Amino acid sequence: MDYEGFFRSEIDALRDEGEYRVFANLERHVGAFPRATRRRDGAAQGANDDRHEVTVWCSNDYLGMGQNAEVRAAMVDAIETCGAGAGGTRNISGTNVHHVALEAELADLHGKESALLFTSGYVSNWAALGTLGSRLPGCVILSDALNHASMIEGMRHSRADKRIWKHNDPEDLRRHLAALDPARPKVVAFESVYSMDGDIAPIAEILDVAEEFGAMTYLDEVHAVGLYGPRGGGVAEREGLMDRLTVIEGTLGKAFGVMGGYIAASTALCDWVRSYASGFIFTTSLPPAVAAGACASIRHLKGSDAERMRQRAMVALLRRRLDQMGIPHLPNPSHIVPVMVKDPVKCKMISDILLDDHGIYVQPINYPTVPRGTERLRFTPSPLHTEADVEHLVQSLHALWSQCALSRAVA
Amino acid sequence: MDYEGFFRSEIDALRDEGEYRVFANLERHVGAFPRATRRRDGAAQGANDDRHEVTVWCSNDYLGMGQNAEVRAAMVDAIETCGAGAGGTRNISGTNVHHVALEAELADLHGKESALLFTSGYVSNWAALGTLGSRLPGCVILSDALNHASMIEGMRHSRADKRIWKHNDPEDLRRHLAALDPARPKVVAFESVYSMDGDIAPIAEILDVAEEFGAMTYLDEVHAVGLYGPRGGGVAEREGLMDRLTVIEGTLGKAFGVMGGYIAASTALCDWVRSYASGFIFTTSLPPAVAAGACASIRHLKGSDAERMRQRAMVALLRRRLDQMGIPHLPNPSHIVPVMVKDPVKCKMISDILLDDHGIYVQPINYPTVPRGTERLRFTPSPLHTEADVEHLVQSLHALWSQCALSRAVA
Repeated sequence: MDYEGFFRSEIDALRDEGEYRVFANLERHVGAFPRATRRRDGAAQGANDDRHEVTVWCSNDYLGMGQNAEVRAAMVDAIETCGAGAGGTRNISGTNVHHVALEAELADLHGKESALLFTSGYVSNWAALGTLGSRLPGCVILSDALNHASMIEGMRHSRADKRIWKHNDPEDLRRHLAALDPARPKVVAFESVYSMDGDIAPIAEILDVAEEFGAMTYLDEVHAVGLYGPRGGGVAEREGLMDRLTVIEGTLGKAFGVMGGYIAASTALCDWVRSYASGFIFTTSLPPAVAAGACASIRHLKGSDAERMRQRAMVALLRRRLDQMGIPHLPNPSHIVPVMVKDPVKCKMISDILLDDHGIYVQPINYPTVPRGTERLRFTPSPLHTEADVEHLVQSLHALWSQCALSRAVA
Repeated sequence: MDYEGFFRSEIDALRDEGEYRVFANLERHVGAFPRATRRRDGAAQGANDDRHEVTVWCSNDYLGMGQNAEVRAAMVDAIETCGAGAGGTRNISGTNVHHVALEAELADLHGKESALLFTSGYVSNWAALGTLGSRLPGCVILSDALNHASMIEGMRHSRADKRIWKHNDPEDLRRHLAALDPARPKVVAFESVYSMDGDIAPIAEILDVAEEFGAMTYLDEVHAVGLYGPRGGGVAEREGLMDRLTVIEGTLGKAFGVMGGYIAASTALCDWVRSYASGFIFTTSLPPAVAAGACASIRHLKGSDAERMRQRAMVALLRRRLDQMGIPHLPNPSHIVPVMVKDPVKCKMISDILLDDHGIYVQPINYPTVPRGTERLRFTPSPLHTEADVEHLVQSLHALWSQCALSRAVA
């Protein structure tokens, strides 16, 4: 077996299919977000040539909280007082006062008894669903068809029976639940905001069905926490549904601007996952500074609506201007603005031109992240984008739409 | 199904079996490591009652680099210049100059073409072995019997065929390899330093066998990087074997004192894992400050042997004093000092008394982390422990050994 040759040929195939990913090398600047310095391939840190300024339009730091002064101060303070890393797993010397405080803050955010931290949102989904699926005897997981990779991998890892119900369709969920043995444990797993289309689940209807059949519910709110609800508790908070959900899963790496993931649920459930999840037990815990920064961010967004209000205004402005220019975008009730290109080559080409000629950075979203034929540019306006940023973006897209002979939206 | 009742009864069973884990809530202090403030259960951050000072004896921040001034300065600088989090996945706006610099630093550390960062050592093993096992056609993974949970979960997730060879036994590995179809891709997965016994793999002999049968090799050096070799490249660096290994996996969360994991390998292999590993692709990247801190730590330990020398002296001192007091510990060639108690109840009791009455924090290591009957206290002397710390520890153990009627080592 020629291993090296195998890896090379697989990479070549990705290039041929236009699916090879090149990461943009960015340096964000405190105080200038969403501006960043982009270094082209191969330019080393500190090199002055071959770098240029861009406006980031595709970050999941949705509210710019990664720049927030309180968040930065909390992180710096924790580094200066506690040091860099946690120094161990949660069980072996790696539990810090900042982890304990953050878990209390998260339980409060979601109105749950407890919360449990993981090193990322990916790990929280993988570990929590993996543990539920493998250790609830006879468990079947009912999964929305468009659930995130981390949920899919967790379910797959658990080897539990799985039923996939049609995306955001409570009636299809009902059909699947009705066909199952009433005595079996069931977990209904879904998301509130789906990140690529920006659509929002009918949470109340899904809960009605799940409760009718005695199923647990597991809601991923990673694209909603910090952004929806009066205290940033997510879509379930906005709709007054948090207490009906068994598990709410979230991230500290998107609207909260730092890193890490969590579940919020009953004390018994959190304690049980804590005791059995390999991906929780056998890993170094988050640095105290990361926990402290996330805690500061959550506290800030519990008390401040200004970031959410300004973000919504910018989302509305971008949509209005796109409509006026006839540039097609997917309508949805969230903060995510997908501009549909529907061609992988053009999608990559447009994003390259935007980056090189217009100083606009938006990553092309192609297969396998979205289905073929639905290639798109996914814009995430933040409270720190200005009206001038929106206008520059819309005018740049307008020019490119003509240049690339892309279809316009029907007025 | 009464879910809540199920979780409660499982937790109760853990308590009955003495396997319920209580996390020590610690606050480390910059400049005072290995000293920390311990808060008892339920005491909130900021409360002044019910806290006391302890000396941490079980951290995996093996060299105290989490306290290092250069590491802290690099982190603070990155927070002040780039902000808190990365703001996205590596592909979607989350690649920062600090990630690029860190991957170059890691490739250089191990003498490999490339390196690839993950959010943790756990994720790096799970994702890299999971991807190799699932995407190399017909792959069989040959796994040392004592490999870490993260490697086991990665192999399990891959659904590749697996052969478990006797721990650190190249001849048993040879028997397994000889029985396999020569045409099949094979991955030999093992660790250099095993964390619970502190024994070290015969890497050269294992490589001889793997090469004879055309197998790839995957070495987990998480308990060795920073600690062994003239530049802290691990046991394989010390023994001049890095170039013979296909993949070297390591962590930034133990001797380097921060957080994160990585693989170092050929450019084609890293690029292939980068392109296919779900646990790499679909997760927010490490905060720039974490990458910057890890980078500073690696650079420091490439150039400084002082921490390693002082750590070895403290390890030798602790072993000598334990021998003089007749306290049994597992002999091994590493920096890990396992003091064998061989009884789960006594192991927990001793660690509780050490913590409450002697200001010594060492987590009891019981089943399932180690086999039943091999319960132990696992000490990790650091360069920042003093001779007085060692003496206080040895005298405390001596008193407890008499008090608890534990067996002495035969002189």
